[in-house]
Amino acid sequence: MRPYEKDPAAIYAQSFATVQAEARLERFSPDMAVLATRLIHACGMVEIADRLAFSPRAAEAGRAALSAGAPIFCDCEMVAAGIIRRRLPAENEVVVTLNDPDVPARAREIGNTRSAAAVEFWGERLGGAVVAVGNAPTALFHLLELLDAGAPPPAIILGFPVGFVGAAESKAELARDPRGAAFVALKGRRGGSAMAAAAVNALAAGLGTDA
Amino acid sequence: MRPYEKDPAAIYAQSFATVQAEARLERFSPDMAVLATRLIHACGMVEIADRLAFSPRAAEAGRAALSAGAPIFCDCEMVAAGIIRRRLPAENEVVVTLNDPDVPARAREIGNTRSAAAVEFWGERLGGAVVAVGNAPTALFHLLELLDAGAPPPAIILGFPVGFVGAAESKAELARDPRGAAFVALKGRRGGSAMAAAAVNALAAGLGTDA
Repeated sequence: MRPYEKDPAAIYAQSFATVQAEARLERFSPDMAVLATRLIHACGMVEIADRLAFSPRAAEAGRAALSAGAPIFCDCEMVAAGIIRRRLPAENEVVVTLNDPDVPARAREIGNTRSAAAVEFWGERLGGAVVAVGNAPTALFHLLELLDAGAPPPAIILGFPVGFVGAAESKAELARDPRGAAFVALKGRRGGSAMAAAAVNALAAGLGTDA
Repeated sequence: MRPYEKDPAAIYAQSFATVQAEARLERFSPDMAVLATRLIHACGMVEIADRLAFSPRAAEAGRAALSAGAPIFCDCEMVAAGIIRRRLPAENEVVVTLNDPDVPARAREIGNTRSAAAVEFWGERLGGAVVAVGNAPTALFHLLELLDAGAPPPAIILGFPVGFVGAAESKAELARDPRGAAFVALKGRRGGSAMAAAAVNALAAGLGTDA
């Protein structure tokens, strides 16, 4: 077998150099370049840089929320599992309500998915929070519906639902009208929990060397 | 806001129909088509079907191992978080050793990453196991080195490390010589924990309706 790179710092440096060389990061503000770099690292696709949508000063809004101790609401356990806890600046709580025992009944009541129903259990703490959606388009759609109905807006919505039914549409709706929240989203079908978690990690500490 | 699909069964059916229409699944055996479909669902990219590498009867080997109660070794917590436990046919143990307290010292001893060192803690139980690598190229590389050194081969290696340094190379080496294991891998830079977990879920129960 051929030799391979085993040194974490060298792996990181080579990886970062590849992203720098290929992703045309100069189109972004410094903070968004950090966020884009982490997203690209998470999926191995430099071309997603062409498909990012975001509000002005989104990264700053996310950082400020985390520094102020905002909770992080995730639509699934995989997103929560990818958040590097030691990076969080204020021991921020990471919350997943998808497996709350009351969720299936609430899903039946509202005629929506469990992922959508789980968003209702974020409650008033949604105001000023960080929201990371890495799986379910219905979670993002229903979050926007709740905001339309008067729920307090989060500080930032990280929109990375994935797939063929509703993913592109829910992210387009978020970008069209983020309802008072800052946002970052990957347009189209692609997304996923690794990207959603990477976005949180980028906000939490910038681009460290333990990527 | 426009109406969106809220019924899980309808979402699943539409998603499945899209994959069927776009991914040319007829190139695969029925078992591999199921696995490819789940991988595509996990990432929203039908074109990954063009970049799958796999050994003959890989899915059958993986299914047999799970049915026989084989443990599932994952290179990171995100992969483990994505495995649908209720699908597993024999309450198979899902094992992540990355955060074992002895891993950092072992990484220093072998001059490799923590992800690589963690593989050594799988020990003799590796024989006949299901291995799912969704993050670290060095974990896959070091697994292959351990097999070269006489470690008992797993039943199947699901190779989905992601990124710019070693991901493509480690998967090419797996495909070149899987060292007595069956394997499925996504060639190139793309991969990730969602795909690795989806591969396990596909082996565990085929393509259910609760996707």
